[in-house]
Amino acid sequence: MTTLGPDDVAAAADRIAGRVRRTPLLGIEDGAFGVSGRLALKLDLLQPTGSFKVRGATNLLAGSRVPDAGVVAASGGNFGLAVAWAARALGHRATIVVPDSSPASKRDPLRALGADLEVVPGVYADALARADALVADRGALRAHAYDDPLVVAGQGTAAAEVLADLPEVDTVVVAVGGGGLLAGTCAALPAHVRVIAVETDGCPTLHAAVDAGEPVDVEVGGLAVSALGARRIGDHAWAVRDRITAALTVPDDAVADAQARLWDTCRLRAEPAGATALAALTSGAYRPEDGERVAIWVCGAN
Amino acid sequence: MTTLGPDDVAAAADRIAGRVRRTPLLGIEDGAFGVSGRLALKLDLLQPTGSFKVRGATNLLAGSRVPDAGVVAASGGNFGLAVAWAARALGHRATIVVPDSSPASKRDPLRALGADLEVVPGVYADALARADALVADRGALRAHAYDDPLVVAGQGTAAAEVLADLPEVDTVVVAVGGGGLLAGTCAALPAHVRVIAVETDGCPTLHAAVDAGEPVDVEVGGLAVSALGARRIGDHAWAVRDRITAALTVPDDAVADAQARLWDTCRLRAEPAGATALAALTSGAYRPEDGERVAIWVCGAN
Repeated sequence: MTTLGPDDVAAAADRIAGRVRRTPLLGIEDGAFGVSGRLALKLDLLQPTGSFKVRGATNLLAGSRVPDAGVVAASGGNFGLAVAWAARALGHRATIVVPDSSPASKRDPLRALGADLEVVPGVYADALARADALVADRGALRAHAYDDPLVVAGQGTAAAEVLADLPEVDTVVVAVGGGGLLAGTCAALPAHVRVIAVETDGCPTLHAAVDAGEPVDVEVGGLAVSALGARRIGDHAWAVRDRITAALTVPDDAVADAQARLWDTCRLRAEPAGATALAALTSGAYRPEDGERVAIWVCGAN
Repeated sequence: MTTLGPDDVAAAADRIAGRVRRTPLLGIEDGAFGVSGRLALKLDLLQPTGSFKVRGATNLLAGSRVPDAGVVAASGGNFGLAVAWAARALGHRATIVVPDSSPASKRDPLRALGADLEVVPGVYADALARADALVADRGALRAHAYDDPLVVAGQGTAAAEVLADLPEVDTVVVAVGGGGLLAGTCAALPAHVRVIAVETDGCPTLHAAVDAGEPVDVEVGGLAVSALGARRIGDHAWAVRDRITAALTVPDDAVADAQARLWDTCRLRAEPAGATALAALTSGAYRPEDGERVAIWVCGAN
């Protein structure tokens, strides 16, 4: 596996420029969330389809030779939406495989984006197996939600934007599911910027891997499971484990509280995963030092 | 009445810096709202209390000698919240007079901000009369929602930020109620930037004034009445009528449609008044020329 760095992220930024949004970093006055400190929010929930995942999906499609059979992804959630959106924008066919255990309400938006939808019996692992079979049968491009180097480099563009907007940033705080955003963030940032990884208690893939000494499957559940519920940390995230300053977990009620504070304080409607990074601060799991400049990813709204 | 200009807005920007938020301008890809063009959204709904009105309220309080009796405002809506918020931030007493015809649900947030609340029988005009009596009795500072020069200059700081973020902006589009935001915007911008004023069909104070040749009272109603429902255009807005490139009206269903598009496209929950400017574009009431750079105020979320 290639180790990704700032050059990969810069190449991704060039590919996605003008296709996805340059999202803002919103500076927040001291004390606004009940947290002392100099906080800023990276508003990637404002992206098309409502999450940061259009960055990686667009970089994958713009940086690959896409066959006529198009791209295939297994996802009942944000990554599927992002792949469908990016494929439509770039003129490619997209097939999204969703397990019948995922909410039917998530399927109409995929159809509205022009994706071919396959609903398979079972859970996410079954959808992934079917997607891999389609890739093999048709010669389609495989889109993995968090363990493809182009996807990871694309997710890292958000961190590069934060660095451009706030060169004096000390610390970034990101939520972790499969770890694509985490790995991309680590690839983008210089070594002096602290990277805080935050998982929910119900989706502790990084913690389980650290405990086991290697990536392992975990049972996932809880409030943020639809967006953070990868069962195993990705190889790219695992490869940067020594780059991470702290890996924290927060309970679901802290996430729900952070969602409420985002509305009260900023009129932002984040999904649980989108409020998980902020929950590390509002719950006290992470306490910035005096004067520490902290950028917090608000990464989704679905 | 003093004519306001860029110096007044610059002074306001200095006063409010670090107190209210420097809100982002979000560039949107061509076609995203079903509108061709180079659009950008000024996200003032991300301000504390969920509207641009903290700009003017903060500038008023920071730029005035505030007596011990504090500040008094008549408002059942966004301006009352903004005055209460700014007074708390600056350590002043605030009394907000609301008519008993306004929704009781709007009162708890005022109390939570520490304001003294007076509920008076009747409609907004009755609340305003009571507020003016309190100002006279107590020697309190009067806060008018849209016809105070400090309030107007404060609202203009949003336009100054847009100009800093997008120096090549050709056109700005703002919603009009009493016209404080409109007047401040005109004060901030150089003459070559087009200013498009947008009213809802139900709240046409500017159109009524233009038809009558002077500000006149109008019956107001419809979807956006709680935020745009001033009964008469303010003197400051009337004074800049010749600066306005176009004054347009949009029907309520166009506003509701623009609200839905803001969610679908950007995951923003705007109030009707907050989507009124965008509605001018999505309804076709305003059609940008090829290459025209258009900034659209998304000004509230309550």
